[in-house]
Amino acid sequence: MSGEEITGGADPEGVLAAVLTPMDDGLAPDHPAFSAHCHRLLAAGCHGLSVFGTTGEANSLSVGERLAALGALLEGGVPANVLLPGTGSCALTDTVRLSRAALEAGTAGVLVLPPFYYKGVGDDGLFRFFAEVIERIGDERLRVYLYHIPQMTGVELRMSLISRLIDAYPGTIAGTKDSSGDRERLETLCREFPGFSVLAGTETLLLETLRNGGKGCISATVNVTSRLARQVYDAHASGRHDEAQARQERLSALRASIETYPMIPALKALMAELARDEEWRNLRPPLSGLDEEQRKKLLAEVPLAHLL
Amino acid sequence: MSGEEITGGADPEGVLAAVLTPMDDGLAPDHPAFSAHCHRLLAAGCHGLSVFGTTGEANSLSVGERLAALGALLEGGVPANVLLPGTGSCALTDTVRLSRAALEAGTAGVLVLPPFYYKGVGDDGLFRFFAEVIERIGDERLRVYLYHIPQMTGVELRMSLISRLIDAYPGTIAGTKDSSGDRERLETLCREFPGFSVLAGTETLLLETLRNGGKGCISATVNVTSRLARQVYDAHASGRHDEAQARQERLSALRASIETYPMIPALKALMAELARDEEWRNLRPPLSGLDEEQRKKLLAEVPLAHLL
Repeated sequence: MSGEEITGGADPEGVLAAVLTPMDDGLAPDHPAFSAHCHRLLAAGCHGLSVFGTTGEANSLSVGERLAALGALLEGGVPANVLLPGTGSCALTDTVRLSRAALEAGTAGVLVLPPFYYKGVGDDGLFRFFAEVIERIGDERLRVYLYHIPQMTGVELRMSLISRLIDAYPGTIAGTKDSSGDRERLETLCREFPGFSVLAGTETLLLETLRNGGKGCISATVNVTSRLARQVYDAHASGRHDEAQARQERLSALRASIETYPMIPALKALMAELARDEEWRNLRPPLSGLDEEQRKKLLAEVPLAHLL
Repeated sequence: MSGEEITGGADPEGVLAAVLTPMDDGLAPDHPAFSAHCHRLLAAGCHGLSVFGTTGEANSLSVGERLAALGALLEGGVPANVLLPGTGSCALTDTVRLSRAALEAGTAGVLVLPPFYYKGVGDDGLFRFFAEVIERIGDERLRVYLYHIPQMTGVELRMSLISRLIDAYPGTIAGTKDSSGDRERLETLCREFPGFSVLAGTETLLLETLRNGGKGCISATVNVTSRLARQVYDAHASGRHDEAQARQERLSALRASIETYPMIPALKALMAELARDEEWRNLRPPLSGLDEEQRKKLLAEVPLAHLL
């Protein structure tokens, strides 16, 4: 790997980190540390950066805090076109505001959660939400990626809904991040919707998704596994199938060693070691840090030298 | 019932409506209609008004929209001390901002959801969230009511958490609205935490909760059943037990006739009839209105003359 930054094209694909948000001791986003981490991830091989997702504790931040942090990244020299910021929220008007700001900043697209307070609302209400967002923004440059993570939202994005959205807004409904962990669903998405970018929510499914015609992954653990994840992608892209498979196995084992811990606290504990900065252990409630025993066990089990 | 408004004391108790938020055709809160509805509910016998809860579609509104609507109610002559506004959100900083504004406006307290994006976070993270809210506001006049509605939030407020919060912030942790529908839990809350105000999330449990030592109810259907609910409360308060029981049975039957429909759309459909204003049928996505068949069935089944 060279140390230089690789900028993505208009359509995010490849290896994307679901970027952690470092917090200062007052639990506010630490802008310089956030920019530095983004640069670190690009240098380590990430094609793109999905900031303000689940891993980024974005729903624990106000809209103002998210906008300020986005501005700080751009001022910090992070290229807008590698960013796929999460702009989802429960409130239509917040999602519109965040998505419009991302569009105006020139990001590659926006990753949009369904509104997640109400449960069991059905396809019609969800369709109307996404339709309102798209029509209120009213800009054909908008690229919406549907963020499916039912274990957090309690909201299922059914195939029928995705199909209806693609039909109504071709081009604008550009893809999905699917964090369901459902391999059959990922395969169906790749097969049923040609031209729709499918990104797996874990690098464990990176190679499988690429082989199915998907575009890559957006993953929490890529905050510390980007180098190896990129090697999998490159080996696949160059047709070095055995190498891709072997690296994927190493990558999956690395991910498995982390995912037995609470994911975001574990990643922040690892980052505190890698960046040699205790501030990385801060989490905004309701998330809590690992307890000391868990933390020591994690650090003993995961070889830091293999990370980032 | 007299037509005059009854204002509550510092501690909300009795019959509280979980107030609907009327939306204009652009899906923005209609401030004059909102004030008018609040006055209508007080005139119909409500002791208090819990605006910006689940029924009020509050999580579908931005913080700015919630603050503007609160300001409009006060300007519209709705007394601050009858209000128990919902101030919960996923973001610590939003909850602090909304709660501080409510406190400064002189509301009776604030109804606070646990942060509801992350699931399975445990007591420590939830405790830390409420503790941060209370300490950041740092005002002993603050009265926090814990809003338990796991069917929407996916977050359980365990007895151990409530106990820990009451111990840490006596006086400030003032009560709870419990919408779990779990009668045993309500009874346990009344018994285990003396001095802690327990409000049932449905008027079906109004009399039972009062008999258990609870303070009343905060309910969606009270938007249209306030008169009868108030009669139950008054009969109980005057020791007219048989009358209280008989009226509770009528009230429960009325509620039952509504709750077979999607609740918020059904209540808005009823309000459109009662207020003779079609605008009341507007709902912000992801909620959708009743379809025409459901609506006609509802209107045929629920006798409008018995409402409000």
